[in-house]
Amino acid sequence: MDRDRLRRLLEEVRGGSVDVDAAIESMSELPFADVEGARVDTHRALRVGIPEVIYAPGKTPEQIAEIVRTLRRAEQDVLATRVAPDVAERVLTDVPGGDYDALGRLLWYGPAEPATLGNGIIAIVSAGTSDLPVAAEAAGVAQRLGNKVESVLDVGVAGLHRLLASSAVLRSARVLIVVAGMEGALPSVVGGLVDKPVIAVPTSVGYGAAFGGVAALLGMLTSCASNVTVVNIDNGFGAAYVATLINRL
Amino acid sequence: MDRDRLRRLLEEVRGGSVDVDAAIESMSELPFADVEGARVDTHRALRVGIPEVIYAPGKTPEQIAEIVRTLRRAEQDVLATRVAPDVAERVLTDVPGGDYDALGRLLWYGPAEPATLGNGIIAIVSAGTSDLPVAAEAAGVAQRLGNKVESVLDVGVAGLHRLLASSAVLRSARVLIVVAGMEGALPSVVGGLVDKPVIAVPTSVGYGAAFGGVAALLGMLTSCASNVTVVNIDNGFGAAYVATLINRL
Amino acid sequence: MDRDRLRRLLEEVRGGSVDVDAAIESMSELPFADVEGARVDTHRALRVGIPEVIYAPGKTPEQIAEIVRTLRRAEQDVLATRVAPDVAERVLTDVPGGDYDALGRLLWYGPAEPATLGNGIIAIVSAGTSDLPVAAEAAGVAQRLGNKVESVLDVGVAGLHRLLASSAVLRSARVLIVVAGMEGALPSVVGGLVDKPVIAVPTSVGYGAAFGGVAALLGMLTSCASNVTVVNIDNGFGAAYVATLINRL
Amino acid sequence: MDRDRLRRLLEEVRGGSVDVDAAIESMSELPFADVEGARVDTHRALRVGIPEVIYAPGKTPEQIAEIVRTLRRAEQDVLATRVAPDVAERVLTDVPGGDYDALGRLLWYGPAEPATLGNGIIAIVSAGTSDLPVAAEAAGVAQRLGNKVESVLDVGVAGLHRLLASSAVLRSARVLIVVAGMEGALPSVVGGLVDKPVIAVPTSVGYGAAFGGVAALLGMLTSCASNVTVVNIDNGFGAAYVATLINRL
Amino acid sequence: MDRDRLRRLLEEVRGGSVDVDAAIESMSELPFADVEGARVDTHRALRVGIPEVIYAPGKTPEQIAEIVRTLRRAEQDVLATRVAPDVAERVLTDVPGGDYDALGRLLWYGPAEPATLGNGIIAIVSAGTSDLPVAAEAAGVAQRLGNKVESVLDVGVAGLHRLLASSAVLRSARVLIVVAGMEGALPSVVGGLVDKPVIAVPTSVGYGAAFGGVAALLGMLTSCASNVTVVNIDNGFGAAYVATLINRL
Amino acid sequence: MDRDRLRRLLEEVRGGSVDVDAAIESMSELPFADVEGARVDTHRALRVGIPEVIYAPGKTPEQIAEIVRTLRRAEQDVLATRVAPDVAERVLTDVPGGDYDALGRLLWYGPAEPATLGNGIIAIVSAGTSDLPVAAEAAGVAQRLGNKVESVLDVGVAGLHRLLASSAVLRSARVLIVVAGMEGALPSVVGGLVDKPVIAVPTSVGYGAAFGGVAALLGMLTSCASNVTVVNIDNGFGAAYVATLINRL
Amino acid sequence: MDRDRLRRLLEEVRGGSVDVDAAIESMSELPFADVEGARVDTHRALRVGIPEVIYAPGKTPEQIAEIVRTLRRAEQDVLATRVAPDVAERVLTDVPGGDYDALGRLLWYGPAEPATLGNGIIAIVSAGTSDLPVAAEAAGVAQRLGNKVESVLDVGVAGLHRLLASSAVLRSARVLIVVAGMEGALPSVVGGLVDKPVIAVPTSVGYGAAFGGVAALLGMLTSCASNVTVVNIDNGFGAAYVATLINRL
Amino acid sequence: MDRDRLRRLLEEVRGGSVDVDAAIESMSELPFADVEGARVDTHRALRVGIPEVIYAPGKTPEQIAEIVRTLRRAEQDVLATRVAPDVAERVLTDVPGGDYDALGRLLWYGPAEPATLGNGIIAIVSAGTSDLPVAAEAAGVAQRLGNKVESVLDVGVAGLHRLLASSAVLRSARVLIVVAGMEGALPSVVGGLVDKPVIAVPTSVGYGAAFGGVAALLGMLTSCASNVTVVNIDNGFGAAYVATLINRL
Repeated sequence: MDRDRLRRLLEEVRGGSVDVDAAIESMSELPFADVEGARVDTHRALRVGIPEVIYAPGKTPEQIAEIVRTLRRAEQDVLATRVAPDVAERVLTDVPGGDYDALGRLLWYGPAEPATLGNGIIAIVSAGTSDLPVAAEAAGVAQRLGNKVESVLDVGVAGLHRLLASSAVLRSARVLIVVAGMEGALPSVVGGLVDKPVIAVPTSVGYGAAFGGVAALLGMLTSCASNVTVVNIDNGFGAAYVATLINRL
Repeated sequence: MDRDRLRRLLEEVRGGSVDVDAAIESMSELPFADVEGARVDTHRALRVGIPEVIYAPGKTPEQIAEIVRTLRRAEQDVLATRVAPDVAERVLTDVPGGDYDALGRLLWYGPAEPATLGNGIIAIVSAGTSDLPVAAEAAGVAQRLGNKVESVLDVGVAGLHRLLASSAVLRSARVLIVVAGMEGALPSVVGGLVDKPVIAVPTSVGYGAAFGGVAALLGMLTSCASNVTVVNIDNGFGAAYVATLINRL
Repeated sequence: MDRDRLRRLLEEVRGGSVDVDAAIESMSELPFADVEGARVDTHRALRVGIPEVIYAPGKTPEQIAEIVRTLRRAEQDVLATRVAPDVAERVLTDVPGGDYDALGRLLWYGPAEPATLGNGIIAIVSAGTSDLPVAAEAAGVAQRLGNKVESVLDVGVAGLHRLLASSAVLRSARVLIVVAGMEGALPSVVGGLVDKPVIAVPTSVGYGAAFGGVAALLGMLTSCASNVTVVNIDNGFGAAYVATLINRL
Repeated sequence: MDRDRLRRLLEEVRGGSVDVDAAIESMSELPFADVEGARVDTHRALRVGIPEVIYAPGKTPEQIAEIVRTLRRAEQDVLATRVAPDVAERVLTDVPGGDYDALGRLLWYGPAEPATLGNGIIAIVSAGTSDLPVAAEAAGVAQRLGNKVESVLDVGVAGLHRLLASSAVLRSARVLIVVAGMEGALPSVVGGLVDKPVIAVPTSVGYGAAFGGVAALLGMLTSCASNVTVVNIDNGFGAAYVATLINRL
Repeated sequence: MDRDRLRRLLEEVRGGSVDVDAAIESMSELPFADVEGARVDTHRALRVGIPEVIYAPGKTPEQIAEIVRTLRRAEQDVLATRVAPDVAERVLTDVPGGDYDALGRLLWYGPAEPATLGNGIIAIVSAGTSDLPVAAEAAGVAQRLGNKVESVLDVGVAGLHRLLASSAVLRSARVLIVVAGMEGALPSVVGGLVDKPVIAVPTSVGYGAAFGGVAALLGMLTSCASNVTVVNIDNGFGAAYVATLINRL
Repeated sequence: MDRDRLRRLLEEVRGGSVDVDAAIESMSELPFADVEGARVDTHRALRVGIPEVIYAPGKTPEQIAEIVRTLRRAEQDVLATRVAPDVAERVLTDVPGGDYDALGRLLWYGPAEPATLGNGIIAIVSAGTSDLPVAAEAAGVAQRLGNKVESVLDVGVAGLHRLLASSAVLRSARVLIVVAGMEGALPSVVGGLVDKPVIAVPTSVGYGAAFGGVAALLGMLTSCASNVTVVNIDNGFGAAYVATLINRL
Repeated sequence: MDRDRLRRLLEEVRGGSVDVDAAIESMSELPFADVEGARVDTHRALRVGIPEVIYAPGKTPEQIAEIVRTLRRAEQDVLATRVAPDVAERVLTDVPGGDYDALGRLLWYGPAEPATLGNGIIAIVSAGTSDLPVAAEAAGVAQRLGNKVESVLDVGVAGLHRLLASSAVLRSARVLIVVAGMEGALPSVVGGLVDKPVIAVPTSVGYGAAFGGVAALLGMLTSCASNVTVVNIDNGFGAAYVATLINRL
Repeated sequence: MDRDRLRRLLEEVRGGSVDVDAAIESMSELPFADVEGARVDTHRALRVGIPEVIYAPGKTPEQIAEIVRTLRRAEQDVLATRVAPDVAERVLTDVPGGDYDALGRLLWYGPAEPATLGNGIIAIVSAGTSDLPVAAEAAGVAQRLGNKVESVLDVGVAGLHRLLASSAVLRSARVLIVVAGMEGALPSVVGGLVDKPVIAVPTSVGYGAAFGGVAALLGMLTSCASNVTVVNIDNGFGAAYVATLINRL
């Protein structure tokens, strides 16, 4: 990153010749640092208020470590998603000080308890035990991005009493993430119980006609509940990201 | 049909040289009558205990009328499915005495109140107002084939209180037919409320990612409720047919 | 609807034996009125703060008129979507006093300028002239549900200068609805320009490999922008509904 | 599980203040035990008359063993499906006393000869040698759930004489499960030979245009035999479960 | 067509300087006549022993008539397929002397009883009444191309006794064409009954999961009978064409 | 197999009370031998004139060896397809005397030069080097089943001069098998060069939009050459089997 | 359009204070005119050297006429594609002076013989008579955009001699557009005959497994000829547009 | 290859009896060398001006080495694509002197700096770090085939400022290759920024609804930018090949 240009800008702000809003606007136009093969956005946290997130698949542990180092040098928190255990281990050896969540496959460099930036609770609801990794990714991301999170797990629609027993938690949330594989019916049922936005995450759980998450995806897109929007299959991160933006409104 | 052969057989039964079970077995091997372009199975009612059912699409009103006449001559009840209103009108003009159910698109020649042959109640459950034609087909067929039918309509999963208010009816049924379009989640929820077989019928209701019933079909095939089996999209007739066989057990 | 039960409840509230929150909670458990073939939810507006919305396809003008009448009798606003011009005309003849938006195919019974209930602006962005009907549905619904709406139309990604010229409007919004057919790339580009939630609506516009909106749908689900969620193809209503919930937070 | 609440209920039954049916009804509303990550339904056997069945994929041997232990402690039989040989070995080491069926991949804790609860015979029919694992799953599950089972294997439709040679067995069954891959034609042919419900199970056997079971699935859904319903690809368990419910009627 | 070149060639044959085989070989390299928008192959009959066949869809009656006229002028027989009734009427008005088969949608200019060129019988087998148009196209084409044809109609696999009653006819054929919609199982069953080549024709008959013939197509491609090959959906013409080539061997 | 019944039958033939044709007919109705898990058809060679062929995938080397032994004991030739090298090695150790074709993955027990039973040449044409295994399977099967085979390899449509250089061979064949992956255009081009039946075999060669053979399959089904029929993806065996039946006519 | 700003700019160019390249660069950033519902890009011709092209579907004749008028007022040529005959007639009544090509469905306002801007010949090759409308669209667009065009029509791959007879024309072209439906094999064959870029256009011609152009599309994408790129199904316009850009290089 | 025939031809050229153009034309009709299993085209470089390119998958290192040796003996440059590292190592051991590009998986035998044959710059643009291998394949091939290449990497559409910062490079190119996975929107955006042909390469990068590159492929085919054509998923080679042909015009 262009630190000189940033310094000049900040001195102008201090000197009063540039006001704060204009400075933030300017900074969101500044260039970016080059790490071999990838442009690293060192002031993204500044610009959108959320740290850079590294999508690990297709990157070597060395590449991930290099990006982490660059961002840590800029005193930013870093979150990496879809990090396999052996990759995490090698990155942590290279750049110590991170925290690895094996279920959610998240690698985090930052405070264990990030400051709360959201205004309410994000509820994470999941249908079956096989959906847990995606739910854990969503919960882990939401917590690191500064939200209070409540999880309601293993409440499939074929056992309504389990779900209804948790309806108080569901109704206390400001925004809900509902994770389900197979027929993906849970968002419709949860959507009917609350009057808040529901972000549905289809999972690739299931066999045969589940088609790797397609059945759940189609079910969620055609939900009869009007308060449901959908993200990509297994995209717990994306759901948590959008929920975070909503929870900050 | 080979009436001579049938007469000989029946006389042998009367004379005692052939017992009833053997006679029925034999008769199920007998040949069939030829109506122009279609072989008509005049003793199907005898053989499987259910009258011949005519699938109307692709047949002219004249062809349908001719089949009806042949079967009525053999003193059988006749049911035709997927009969468009104008087709029904022309068949009824040609062969009076039938009854047309416009919502379920069924044309029926037989007693208004067929004798009850099933042992319990068949519940017909449907999700939305647009699913009504398929539910009506299932209900009409089940009633004509000798079953007591209870309908629970317009109970989508996004409004659980409506569905739960009908749970006594659901639990009173011996077999259930659940009709739903869009995400097709209703069979999973109903399946979790009862311990009886549930026959799921996806409907072609819905737009976009509903893909003419594919979303509902996949949702039902991947249902997390273990007591659900599935028939083809919009196949209210097939669901009622199987439910009838089960209800006679 | 069970008016007696509602009356008793409201008298208890007045008498002070039940407080307001408890009453609202109770009322959200109350039953519903039966209109022939469809259960009408007369206190939905009360419960989720949004009037009942009628999905017109598959309903006759008479059925729509009957539902409208029932809801108007309960002094509720009514919105019907996907209303064809001839259907609208017949409903308006039957139940005068409504307003028809031909582009968005919306029929509305309620104040021309509904009270503003949302906290910010909903931006509606669309890619091409063929996407206008869906954008108009989204805009019309959002406005009727009490939101301030800004529309930025005809800003496809192949002409970036058009889109960038509107970036101030995009950044002023609290939540954005982005409508696009064909390759559905607009939500990704808009998503990169703002730090607010973006609801993407694929449209069935396009031919050949557009596959009736599938190309756009897949493009939006796999968007490289993390702040994008997706609704069903052509579902301008659903997008506006969720945007409304978000805008009220 | 809430043992206190259960004890009170049972004492009321003994004291006569609650009758048996009401008690059973009540108990089906009772909560459930929490095993780490999964809610275990300890009185499911009571409620629907069928023991909890564990779907093994996605669970570690330790998780499966823990669930088995919890259920055995509650004196319930346990069935686990899709258990790989190495997983079975580790669970059996951890919780001895179970029985593993390698072909059907079933792990069973319960009596070798469960009490017969069904009223007739369930016939399991399969098309080719490659369909045997799914047929074995169906047969093993049906037998454990208390049914008499007859298997008719390797009777594909391209060799009709093999199938016809078994028609007496087919006709003796109260409900039939027909397992087939490739073109999935067997259920149609069997369905035409009997007047009982046929549950069709497509298998993922085949290559090329078999598309992992899709060809068989579509073939079964569009069967010209009206007594056929369908479950998910390779879902031998689901077929046996529904057949069991039907056989108990 | 280049008549001069043909004349020279034929005179050389007559003169003995070119033998017959060489002449035929040469002629198969000769150019073709231009009819507005379409090159008409006036010696195709000579070259492959089968007259030019016109695929009517997408051509105007005038274009078809012009091609017919050109070919008739060259003293060739002409067959047009997929000819709608109104198109046939207009072509016949323009170029009298043809024969129209309304069920098979075939228009034929040539002898009513073409000379038999095939060595055996082609059997045409079809599953249901709705498959009749495609079976009629196959039968009509085969007969016009000089084959003896036997038809066995309405013999679906759910009524095996009907099919088995015709097994003598099936076994008498040198090559078989089997036409079926829905699950497309008939070719597998017929293929198991005979030891001759079976050409399977999927039809677009059926609804829902039949997907316009896809279910039947996949079923036929994955047939467990090894003597089955497949042509395109509804392609009765193609099946008859190949059967003709085989029957001439 | 029922040897007694066979002996009686053959003695009747010898005695003259049954003539040969009737005996063959009878024998084709006789039962079959049971090898654990699979019914082995020991007189298939007699019935259709082609030895039993074992499809190896999904069978253990032990099962294959057992079937081979049973058939060899009945003095039949045996062909196994899709035999992986390690499987072949284990079967050959268990039952020596077979011959393994590694490219075509065929295992053969029988004479190296089977008697010629076909009347002409079967040409095997393939498009690219990656299609060789499927072409080799087709060639190997055709040769073992008693046909003269000519192979024309590596003649893709993007290099027409290679293909045209082989046109004499193509025209000398009585039936042709054309193997191609990717766009699968070769059967159309070959089909236009000959007037004999062409059996097209799509292969799973290719990446991306080849979709594992789907592109080639669709291309072949929609071929503009009328003498093309199609078998399943990679089904070299099936193509050779049908070509053999045709070549024996 | 902002004519004042353009005038100032051009005067600066004339005055020498701005050079030509800078002016062109500037102008490509200028705004655009608003026609009700659509932003009309009045200097597009200036910017990319190609006139604005109107895609007619989804626009009323009035909207098209208004856009035409606006562009004509700015002295630009206008081309509209996919114009149905009745729409063309109404636009021509409203804005006379245009020329309608019924086969290619093109409406053109501009010189009958546009100035030649391309450096060589664009060859348009098509497979069957049904592909003619798409080939005509490509040819018409290419000619209007200033290219010399040669058409080679009706040269399907099943009749190679027709295609080879035109190889001189194919080799004379600088860029080729190849239009084909069904199996879409023509681009591969043409691609092998020339060493110039080939733009393949799949058409929606064909039935059954052609799936509205999908078979041709997949065939072209997986072409074994390396000089082939592909545009959308039926997109004759797009092919001509890219060919024009290439021909101007 | 037929060296004698080539020598005679060249001597005739030298002697003046054949002119150069005729000689080149002749040579493009000459035959080809046979390497075991593959016909090697030893004068392809001569004919189309581009060396033979070996597609490595499905070939053994020995087969690749043999083809390389044959071509090197004919003094040709050789390029192999999709060469895995271990395969490259074995070929290089066998035939030293080559250069391996591990990222682009290219193996090259020829000059490090091939002579420039193209007239301008080919720009390679890619969206994300995961698209780098395909971009590297395109860049490596284009450079080896004699083009100047400029790469603009990691410029996804969700970060427009990155892309716009490179617009000078984009506008300097004569032809552009745009590589993108996921929603594949980059070609549309780049296509709008330039007035040169854009070749879009979808990559198989992404998960869930990316469907291995299908989402990107459909997005590119339906691009709203008219200057975009498309090649197969991950086909960096094909894009570079066509770009080379265009760049030589």
